[in-house]
Order: sequence, then C-alpha cells, then structure tokens
Amino acid sequence: MSFTNPIIEAGLSGLTDLFADRAVTPVEVFKSYQSRIDGLDGALGCYVAQDTAAAEQAAHESAERWARGAALSMIDGAPIAVKANIAVAGLPWHAGIGAFRDRIAEDDAPVVAQLRAAGAVILGLVNMHEGAFGALTDNPWFGRTQNPWKHGYSAGGSSGGSAAAVSAGLCAAALGSDTLGSVRIPSGFTGVFGHKPTQGLISTGDVIPMSWTLDHVGTHGRSADDCARLLAAACGAEAELASEIARPSPLESLIDAPMAVLRLDGFPCDDAQKAALAAAVAKARRLGFEVEEVALDGYDFQEAVRLGVIISGAESMADHAAMLAQNPDGFSAEFRRNMAFGGEQTAAVLAGAYRDLAGLAESARAALGAYQGLLLPTTPCAAYSFEAGQSPDVAFYTTLGNVVGLPATAFPMGLSGDELPLSVQALAWDDETSLGLARALAEPVGAPPNYRG
Amino acid sequence: MSFTNPIIEAGLSGLTDLFADRAVTPVEVFKSYQSRIDGLDGALGCYVAQDTAAAEQAAHESAERWARGAALSMIDGAPIAVKANIAVAGLPWHAGIGAFRDRIAEDDAPVVAQLRAAGAVILGLVNMHEGAFGALTDNPWFGRTQNPWKHGYSAGGSSGGSAAAVSAGLCAAALGSDTLGSVRIPSGFTGVFGHKPTQGLISTGDVIPMSWTLDHVGTHGRSADDCARLLAAACGAEAELASEIARPSPLESLIDAPMAVLRLDGFPCDDAQKAALAAAVAKARRLGFEVEEVALDGYDFQEAVRLGVIISGAESMADHAAMLAQNPDGFSAEFRRNMAFGGEQTAAVLAGAYRDLAGLAESARAALGAYQGLLLPTTPCAAYSFEAGQSPDVAFYTTLGNVVGLPATAFPMGLSGDELPLSVQALAWDDETSLGLARALAEPVGAPPNYRG
Repeated sequence: MSFTNPIIEAGLSGLTDLFADRAVTPVEVFKSYQSRIDGLDGALGCYVAQDTAAAEQAAHESAERWARGAALSMIDGAPIAVKANIAVAGLPWHAGIGAFRDRIAEDDAPVVAQLRAAGAVILGLVNMHEGAFGALTDNPWFGRTQNPWKHGYSAGGSSGGSAAAVSAGLCAAALGSDTLGSVRIPSGFTGVFGHKPTQGLISTGDVIPMSWTLDHVGTHGRSADDCARLLAAACGAEAELASEIARPSPLESLIDAPMAVLRLDGFPCDDAQKAALAAAVAKARRLGFEVEEVALDGYDFQEAVRLGVIISGAESMADHAAMLAQNPDGFSAEFRRNMAFGGEQTAAVLAGAYRDLAGLAESARAALGAYQGLLLPTTPCAAYSFEAGQSPDVAFYTTLGNVVGLPATAFPMGLSGDELPLSVQALAWDDETSLGLARALAEPVGAPPNYRG
Repeated sequence: MSFTNPIIEAGLSGLTDLFADRAVTPVEVFKSYQSRIDGLDGALGCYVAQDTAAAEQAAHESAERWARGAALSMIDGAPIAVKANIAVAGLPWHAGIGAFRDRIAEDDAPVVAQLRAAGAVILGLVNMHEGAFGALTDNPWFGRTQNPWKHGYSAGGSSGGSAAAVSAGLCAAALGSDTLGSVRIPSGFTGVFGHKPTQGLISTGDVIPMSWTLDHVGTHGRSADDCARLLAAACGAEAELASEIARPSPLESLIDAPMAVLRLDGFPCDDAQKAALAAAVAKARRLGFEVEEVALDGYDFQEAVRLGVIISGAESMADHAAMLAQNPDGFSAEFRRNMAFGGEQTAAVLAGAYRDLAGLAESARAALGAYQGLLLPTTPCAAYSFEAGQSPDVAFYTTLGNVVGLPATAFPMGLSGDELPLSVQALAWDDETSLGLARALAEPVGAPPNYRG
C-alpha cells in the first residue's frame, strides 16, 4: 500500500502487530485517524455523525487492555466506520433519509454490539445513498461522498461513505450493507475490497432495511484479510466459523476444483473491466487454477435485477409506510419513485417476483454446483462522474450474490487508463473461499494519490 | 366404528391385518369401495374423476404382492382418494377450476408417486372448493359435495371431497391440502381425523398452489392411526421419521410437559364447540395431563386470517396469471373476487403482510414454547348448510397451524344436539405428538347413519 503514515498503512490486520509490539497504542491510532478525518473529510464527505469523545474513551480502554495483554480480539482498538443505516447507540439512525435525520438510536445494532465486544473503536457513521436505493451516494440530505481517486466522480453506493472512508484512510475498515451490490459496487469504484458474506452470517437486526429478504451486512477493507477479520468479529456468535474465516487458508487448498469465469457475450461490460477480468483469470491460471468459461444460461442477469428492484421497492415502502404517510417530504422524489416502482405494483406481481427470483436462484446454484467459485466483473464500468450519473446496469453482476445468498468478494484489479480502480468479484460456496480467491488474485491499487500523505 | 361391512370398517390401518391374515385381498377391498362409490357417490358428490381400470390393476398387483409375502408397506393395497389439485398421471388436474378442467396430468405429483411406491391403490380424484379458496365445496364446475351426516349441509372445504369420502366410507383414507385450514375444517365437519403435518414434511410439488408459502399436503382418516400411516407413506423419503410417525407412542410419553388450551374469551365459538373443547380438556386431565389456559396474546387470530387471505390471493393470482388473461371466464366470479382481494392490493401491502405474518408466527411460537401442545377448536361451529353459506370465521382457529408451520390434527369430539360432528384441534411441536394427542383425546362419532350399510 502507500500511505506514508505507517499507522494508516497498517490497515486493520496490521494494527494487531503494532499494538502487540507496543509500537503504537489504540489512542495514537484513534488520533491519527481522527486527525485525517478533521483534515480531509470536509472535502470528501464520508462522515455524517461522530461521537469523538466516546471513540476516544473506547480507544483508551483498548489501550489499557493491550497494555496488560488482555486484548479482546484481533480487532481490539481498530477504528471502524459504520454505514448510516446501522444503529449505533446515541448517534442518528436514518439510512440517509431526511425523515429520520433527527432519530437517535437507543441501542447498538447486534452487529455493532459484536464489534464493541471485540474491542472495536466506532469512529462514527458514514454517508450512503438515500435509503440504500441507489449507487451514487449523492445524498439530498447529507451531501455527496466524493471518490478519493477523482473528485467529481462517485464513490458508488449505496455504501459510498464506507468504501470511500476505507480507500482514503479515514478508518481502518468499515461496515456496509448490500442488497443488490451496495458493498461491492463502491468497493470496486474506490479500489478497496468489499465482502458480502453468506446470507444471515452477520445479523441484519436494527439495520434499516432496503429489502429484508435480500439485505446483507458486509465489510470493506484495504485487503481481503481486513475484510475477513472484520467479518469474523461481526459474526462473533459463530466463534468457530469466525476463526475459520479469519485464518488465511493456504492457496493450495483452493486449487482443488475447477473455477468458473462468466462468459460476457452480449453483457454490458466496458473494455477496461473486461481486461481486468481477463487479468484475474490469467493470474488464476498462472497460480495453478483450472478455469472454465460458463454462461449460467438459466440465470437471467437483467431480469434478476428487475425482480430485485421490485422486491426492494415493495419492502422499502412497507418498512417506511408509517413515515411516508406522516412526512412524505422527508423522502426525496427520486427515492419515492424508486420505492413506488416496486411498491405500487400489484401484490400478484410481487408474489410472482419472489417466486421467479427463487427460480433464478435455483438455476444459478445448479449451474455453479460443479465449480468452487465464479469470477465475474463487479460492475460493467469503473466509477462514473456525478455529472454522468448512475449507470443503469451498475448492479448487473452483483445482484447474483444476493439472489443466491452466497458470499461474494469484490477485489481491486489495477487501474484504468484514466487512473480509476478496476474490480473483479469472486463468488463461492463459503466465505473463506471467496475471500481466499480475492486474496490470491487481487492486484491492489494502493492509496488514492491525493490521500497518501 | 360402525360400518356393517368389515372391509370398510377396517379403515386404513385395519386392512394390513386383513391382508396378512388372507381374510380378504386388495382386489376384494377395491371392489367393495368401488361398489360403494357406484351406489352412493351420485348423491354425495365426492369423486370428480376415476380410472377404475388402473385402480383395479393396482389392486391386482398388490394382491399378488401380499400373496407372496412381499407387501411394500403398511398401506399396500389400501384404496386412497386424492384431492383434485394434486397431479395424478392420466387424470384431470384442475383444482376444481373450470379453466383447467380438460388438462390431464402427465406425471404423478411426488406425493402420489410416494403412495404408489408404497403400494396404494389410487381410487380417483375428489371434489374441492374452487382453487382451494373457500370452505364450502359447492363447486360451480364440479358440483356440491354433500355432508354425509346431513345432506344439504356442507362437508366444509376446501378438501370437502376428501373428508366426505373418508367419512362415508368411499375410500380408506385421503389426501387433502391445507393452506388456512382446508384439511382440518372438512375433517371436523364430517367427523373424521384430519392432519396437517409439519410444513414441508409432505412435498407440495405438482400441487396447484393456493399459496406456496402456506400450502401443506395433509391426510384424512377415520382414526389418528390412519392419518399417521398415510402420512408416513406420503413422506416416504424420510424413512426414519415415517416409522416414528406410524408407530403409536405410548400415552405416558406424552404426559411429560404441561399442555395448553386456548382461552376463548371474546373469540367466535358456539356453545357446542366450546363444550367439545371442554370435554377434550376434561379427558386430558383424567388421563393425567396438566392443562393450562393460555391467551396467545401476541398472536392476533383475526389479523392472521386477513393476512393469510391477502397472501393466498396474491400467490393464487400470480400462479394463475397466464390462464386468467387467456380465459377469465374459466374462473368463477367468486374465485376471482377472492383472489383479487389479495392480488390487487399494492405490492407494499403484500410485503408488509409477509412481514407481519412472520411476526405473528414468532409471537405464537414463543408463547407455545413452554407447552408440549395446544388444544383449540377446529372451527367456531359445526357444519353449516349450503343455504346458510360459509361462516366468515371458519378459518379463525386453523390458520395458526399454517402460520407457525407446526403440525395440527383435527379430531372428532362427539356430536352436537342436531347430530353434526364436533371437532377439536391438537397442535404440537412434532407430528407424532399432535397425532398422539388426537388418538388419546378423541371421542369418535362412528359412521354417518345413512352410510353404515
């Protein structure tokens, strides 16, 4: 990586050694991050709420634990950012929706409670696309999150603040949420790793839903290991599984079944992202993987997005029904239109959508059965400018992971000709494998040039 | 029981001994039942399709197996009726819907294939409320099924033909389906046992759905053992479980945790059904059970029915969408209205209905956690006349079983003052227990007077 400050360069996984070696303390780490937030975030637009006193207090407590050799976990003392749809006690809980901007969370969401129990320092809440319903993070109530690689360009979404904060070194790692791609898309746009776990692995309790049938909480990090460690802490209840995930598996253990790469004929994908996928496949073959092209004929990518958007709209509208009636102007016109596209269909259409999406999932799972994983683009293109606006096909490749409920990790694969990060996804049958593939195949892009210092 | 013909009196479970003792052969059994169908069903209106040649052939094959001591199961040679929404190869497959009356099933539904593999003789298809969407079985396309206890009265529904055929001795046992009570309601109205198994225990493959999220295939029999044996054969894939279910458990094994009885304050229930429930509770106490009254406060019975009807309407309409567009007049106006009540709500309302019904289920399961079972009425009243029409509250007590997915067995509890069967339900955490409670507590009512000879 390439942050000049070794504390920032350490990411999440590197902090453990620094703490254990007493090279730095969690308080120094907190202060380093907070100083970057104070200096850089005004222009970047990641954080929407902080309780710095509470964070500093948590850092002090962590320092005390490290000092007496009683760290709670491998993420004890690590400064973590949390997406604004996840409840953090004492901070606003609004999912980027104006109507909820003054609501304060009384309790931590279960996933936040897990992180605190592991000793994490919660830095604050980060920006997102309103209601998670989009991939631009140009929020009408909380402002734009810029792409650290190029201001004026989107960090993607809906977890745009989470990914940008990781990319720019404004947190060690971050929680996001992913309904049709909302962790992986912004991770791809900002050159970081984004992991959508197996459905249900991380609790979605007290996460304002976009779609309670498709929502997943996921992790953003500057390495696959960082994503894995945060995931392991976030699903703490499943301790054994967590240790599996956090312990990097040797590459050889992955090379025991053929891997698939998606055939892109006729699919939306620009040349740069095609080249990134080809580079990942070439690297996989060099490492000893057998890679076969598959078409997933029974899975209609376009239709899956359409059905996912209908379901998300209906569930979002059902979730927000009371507030929509009470304060419709607390939702932007765009967000209301997006919800209405699903929510105002007939009930029979929605019933058919659930049924048909389940059918597509079954087809996809059957077609993937012979493979240990699938490589496919994260998005059809690299980050778009705010001026150009969101690509209509942005969730074309990510929706698959939500529909089948399998883990998928977006990983960086170099830069485009205009210095924007490219990204590839690895989808697999278990979290350890998708993270392991990301670890083995990624071509990290380092820190965004203007954020290295 | 009280059929004068010992073959009919044997029900399903009694046939095994008759066959093993060579007292009768499956061919004689088939002919006895077919002769009753020929003589009695014109007025009763159970069967809507038969292939008597195929049934007789199956009976011959079974006879040959019994003769050489190679019976396939405890139901080998038993004549079984199948509800008209379940596919039987070569017979019409229409769910009582006019639009599908000329469609012939190419293959057996998985549940029918299981029964054939166990040696059952499929007698034919029996009548049902159109599309399973009601509890009257006054079918505009296939006619009325009379209640064997009193013609002019409904056999209930939607599996009215299944229950009436069992009650009148026109089959040894029958398959029905139950979305909001469609096995248990007609079983209660006709004085037989009706078992809705644990959700998923019997395949609903190739069963025309009323609601694919709430549908269950269930069994009707003249005893709890008959229901249990047919269930065991119908879920043949789970062989171990099947043998658990088919082996009557000793009463003592059930008396190890308190049982609950539903408090009826303010609920729709006439005096006769209240007395039937009280009699079941008194019998349970005499047998040594501790029985506590519970209110299930977190579960709103009325709201659960309303949500279940919305979901069923939406899923029925989605399932029939193509045929509704092509041949709307092949659906009665009443059935279209019932579907539209759910199907033409907004998608947001349906999404909320799924969510809210899941919430009610969670409440009910939590409230029942301390008990090994719950006794409650099957219906608020005994059978109604066709003239009076379906009671609006008919599914008030049965919907609970579908919502929580737990097994529930309706069992007869004597006769009302006007000689109509009364019925109580036992709901439990496993099929063996709900069937065992039904076995222990029932007050069988014998055969309907006009069908004994």
